[in-house]
Amino acid sequence: MNREALKQQIFQKGSYLCVGLDTDVRKLPASVRYEKDPIFAFNRRIIDATAEFCIAYKPNLAFYESLGAAGWESLARTMEYIPKHIFTIADAKRGDIGNTSALYARTFFEQYQFDAVTVAPYMGSDSVQPFLHYTNKWVVLLALTSNQGSADFQQLPIMPEGLPLYRVVMERAMTWASPEQLMFVVGATQAHHLASIRNLAPQHFLLVPGYGAQGGDLHAVSRAGLNSDGGLIVNASRTILYASEGNDFDTAAGRQAQHIAAEMRHYLELYAR
Amino acid sequence: MNREALKQQIFQKGSYLCVGLDTDVRKLPASVRYEKDPIFAFNRRIIDATAEFCIAYKPNLAFYESLGAAGWESLARTMEYIPKHIFTIADAKRGDIGNTSALYARTFFEQYQFDAVTVAPYMGSDSVQPFLHYTNKWVVLLALTSNQGSADFQQLPIMPEGLPLYRVVMERAMTWASPEQLMFVVGATQAHHLASIRNLAPQHFLLVPGYGAQGGDLHAVSRAGLNSDGGLIVNASRTILYASEGNDFDTAAGRQAQHIAAEMRHYLELYAR
Repeated sequence: MNREALKQQIFQKGSYLCVGLDTDVRKLPASVRYEKDPIFAFNRRIIDATAEFCIAYKPNLAFYESLGAAGWESLARTMEYIPKHIFTIADAKRGDIGNTSALYARTFFEQYQFDAVTVAPYMGSDSVQPFLHYTNKWVVLLALTSNQGSADFQQLPIMPEGLPLYRVVMERAMTWASPEQLMFVVGATQAHHLASIRNLAPQHFLLVPGYGAQGGDLHAVSRAGLNSDGGLIVNASRTILYASEGNDFDTAAGRQAQHIAAEMRHYLELYAR
Repeated sequence: MNREALKQQIFQKGSYLCVGLDTDVRKLPASVRYEKDPIFAFNRRIIDATAEFCIAYKPNLAFYESLGAAGWESLARTMEYIPKHIFTIADAKRGDIGNTSALYARTFFEQYQFDAVTVAPYMGSDSVQPFLHYTNKWVVLLALTSNQGSADFQQLPIMPEGLPLYRVVMERAMTWASPEQLMFVVGATQAHHLASIRNLAPQHFLLVPGYGAQGGDLHAVSRAGLNSDGGLIVNASRTILYASEGNDFDTAAGRQAQHIAAEMRHYLELYAR
């Protein structure tokens, strides 16, 4: 999916919500637990309930991998089921030497037909390049993540000016790819850094996890991060998936997504310019 | 597997060779291509031919993932087939927020029974900790990798002393875990940095990829890196797996592994003290 289509979806729906499909087999309601493919049965009902309120789905690969071969079949079914006009992100945080990254790119972009994949920057340019060889596919590069450990290395001051590592990562990565192919991960818990990040990368989309269960503030994120294309994809996972433990999990998820989208519509009107 | 058992294996076999199971479905010889599970059929013959000359196997997850559910079944069969006294490393380069890293740890350590997993440090302490909650299981943390892109971020000078990032990563990580649980990845192409890395981490095992196809120098690596426990695991993948394109691929692989091991025995006698 290209940038224009993503932008259109955001303004048509009045939403920049991404639903994180961190589907945890241990948290499935009884009503899907005995289906032939419980993960897919759960995801299908979540997708049916949320598709009109979100613009992206982001399966977290760890949840599928932890189920072995069956998990990858659930992922394939889920990807087939997601409506084609909705953006899809493989939250995989891959990154390896060139020939290996090329295989990961083939897996996520060709085999599973994702629009985007999250990539870890530590191994540098040639670990990211293979993901950029695809048209209308996206690298979502880790910049400043939502977890506590983001302070350990991402914020280390680099000589000579003392820029934090994540800013050097962003600056270099912007020389590798345009805003048509490259997004950055910036955690919602890092809202106080978002204005300066938006300054550094005025045009790039930012994928913002950490809203909801991890405690990020949607208003602060939106005020600092929205641009004239929208420019934000804000992810919520647990808040939506597990809004109810009962068989009404899907209607509860839909209600939650609708609620977030309504707030987003308001912020789009205020700040998307 | 604990450190003592790993050390014993190294000195009994006179080898610190790891065979990288980067099994590429596009490079399989005709003689296994039509087996029911060609990847496993290939791996089984490679394992039979090399087990006496190597002390570890390292499946590169990208190669299995790229085949979808079937690839994960090949991986499971391969892991079951590897003799239990041989060390196993999941070359996965994972690393995510705590609950997600915990799932990856469960996948590789419990489900697939790996002894070790490669982890990317960018997300910091809480992304690595979940992998350390297992006894006799290992984190192999990326420090200075073998690829060109390792210069992009890993060698950036950190204020105030100007230490390169990879050294700061190593120093911090050594406060998280002992040499009984933590190893570092240092590419064979970085042999000129190995002496100072060995100084910084005299006891830690180093996993050294990049020997062979990527051009690393085994003598230089061994001289700078061996310690009294061995302390090195040097990986070769393509050089061994694809030593012959014919149906004799396994005997060719065994011969290649034997040849490398003979060189290693010599270096162990010279430098392991």
